[in-house]
Amino acid sequence: MNDVTVLGLGAMGSALARTFLEHGLATTVWNRTAAKADDLVARGARRAGTVADAVAAAPLVVVCLTDHDATEQILEACGDAMAGRTLVDLTTGTPEQARETAQWAGKHGAGHLDGVVQAGPGQIGTPDATLFYSGAPQAFAAHRAALELLGTTHHVGDDAGQAALYDLALLGLWYDTTLAYLHALALVGGAGDVEPFAPFAARQIDHVVQAAPEVAREIRDRAYPRGPASLTEHAPVLEHLVRLRTASNLDTAQLEHVLSLVNRPIAAGHGAEGFTSLIEELAPIIFAA
Amino acid sequence: MNDVTVLGLGAMGSALARTFLEHGLATTVWNRTAAKADDLVARGARRAGTVADAVAAAPLVVVCLTDHDATEQILEACGDAMAGRTLVDLTTGTPEQARETAQWAGKHGAGHLDGVVQAGPGQIGTPDATLFYSGAPQAFAAHRAALELLGTTHHVGDDAGQAALYDLALLGLWYDTTLAYLHALALVGGAGDVEPFAPFAARQIDHVVQAAPEVAREIRDRAYPRGPASLTEHAPVLEHLVRLRTASNLDTAQLEHVLSLVNRPIAAGHGAEGFTSLIEELAPIIFAA
Repeated sequence: MNDVTVLGLGAMGSALARTFLEHGLATTVWNRTAAKADDLVARGARRAGTVADAVAAAPLVVVCLTDHDATEQILEACGDAMAGRTLVDLTTGTPEQARETAQWAGKHGAGHLDGVVQAGPGQIGTPDATLFYSGAPQAFAAHRAALELLGTTHHVGDDAGQAALYDLALLGLWYDTTLAYLHALALVGGAGDVEPFAPFAARQIDHVVQAAPEVAREIRDRAYPRGPASLTEHAPVLEHLVRLRTASNLDTAQLEHVLSLVNRPIAAGHGAEGFTSLIEELAPIIFAA
Repeated sequence: MNDVTVLGLGAMGSALARTFLEHGLATTVWNRTAAKADDLVARGARRAGTVADAVAAAPLVVVCLTDHDATEQILEACGDAMAGRTLVDLTTGTPEQARETAQWAGKHGAGHLDGVVQAGPGQIGTPDATLFYSGAPQAFAAHRAALELLGTTHHVGDDAGQAALYDLALLGLWYDTTLAYLHALALVGGAGDVEPFAPFAARQIDHVVQAAPEVAREIRDRAYPRGPASLTEHAPVLEHLVRLRTASNLDTAQLEHVLSLVNRPIAAGHGAEGFTSLIEELAPIIFAA
């Protein structure tokens, strides 16, 4: 028995296999185009001729393919060979796809973790690579030592979809926050050089960073204290901002959206609450209960 | 001659006058409702009977009223008494209003600075109070020592409107960034507790904080290197995020907006550029030249 099998030897899969090998793990590799394994074989990997052979070789099977469809095809091909193994799927996909793969694993007598790599191939094996896993805690505990070789490792939930959900939420957060910064720079850029503004903007964004844990606790408790200003106090500030941006010929859609969100709880008599209470407008399905 | 005059003794104006007095500045105060000056007079302030008397008493005249209309009325009342004085207007207003007051001051032979207080009255006189000023650098240099008593002090531009512009851009940035965080929490909250997500979100937002100076330099230079991903690489990630949010019944308007912004430079042949290049979509008037 080898220690680990890696299926899929693109840039990321190869980096995973290389890291396992560097740490002395007996590693079996497989790729649809077999030549992609040559370099890893030169480093000591064992090349498997078929998916089923590869899966049979080790208790831990790490899959890293181009997309979920490719994963489904590979799993079809290996059939019952996965029984008794733990499938760790690092292929990029949606939470729903992760749950489908977890179901497949359950039916075939295999353990399952879905994983997300927040790093480029060059960072694999260093603390700069962050990896999220979700699925059965026992599966994570059993293979934690091997998985921790790949980077900074977090088990973020028992639901198989959670890792993909975290990843997508964090990606969206980067886009939204970066766009918020660009909007502010566009406003300031109308009257001068943007560079002196950057440190002030950085400090302002950092206020949100510092408040992040407290905001999450407020949501957990569904209690939204006023904080620096109540919703009733936010509304005129937002109206003022919309007027200013309009006067500067800048896009106001996002701010008008915030204003409409703020006005809803005010109309419902919750104007004394703090800004965090808007979460119940953003995710009404979750908070309807 | 006194050192400084403060017109308008609401919570903020009173805090300004109190801080000047604590530092031993000979301070004249005036308020429409004279009784509001009682506490300051007990602390050593001189009470002026009229706006013109107040303005005549000191070379530095700090104004902090409820709004720009109130400032206009006060300035009408003081007429030519302002000649030879420097008017520092800390009343909240728009960049355009700041420029109007600067024009009025110029016509009446007075210096002018517009100022913004980013603090509550309780923070005045401490480093936690940040104050932005804009207007003639000579006016700032002449009164810098007195103004620095009020808090951490920045002269952000020669255009009188710049301080108000910074303030409004930073306020908008807070709303946009906080909403970005709430959107991410709403997405994650659909599958579990949001609290474990907070540290990851904080780290992600901090990436934007860390990149802020570099992004501003790219805009200054109108050069947008690829960075972690090109626009052509961002587009499918954004499409994926829109699909996921749709599947989770969450608002996709903001992300679809980002996607439409990304697609424009791609269509114009700039797909190899980095995300910062979107600034030219957000502020087309500035970058049309």
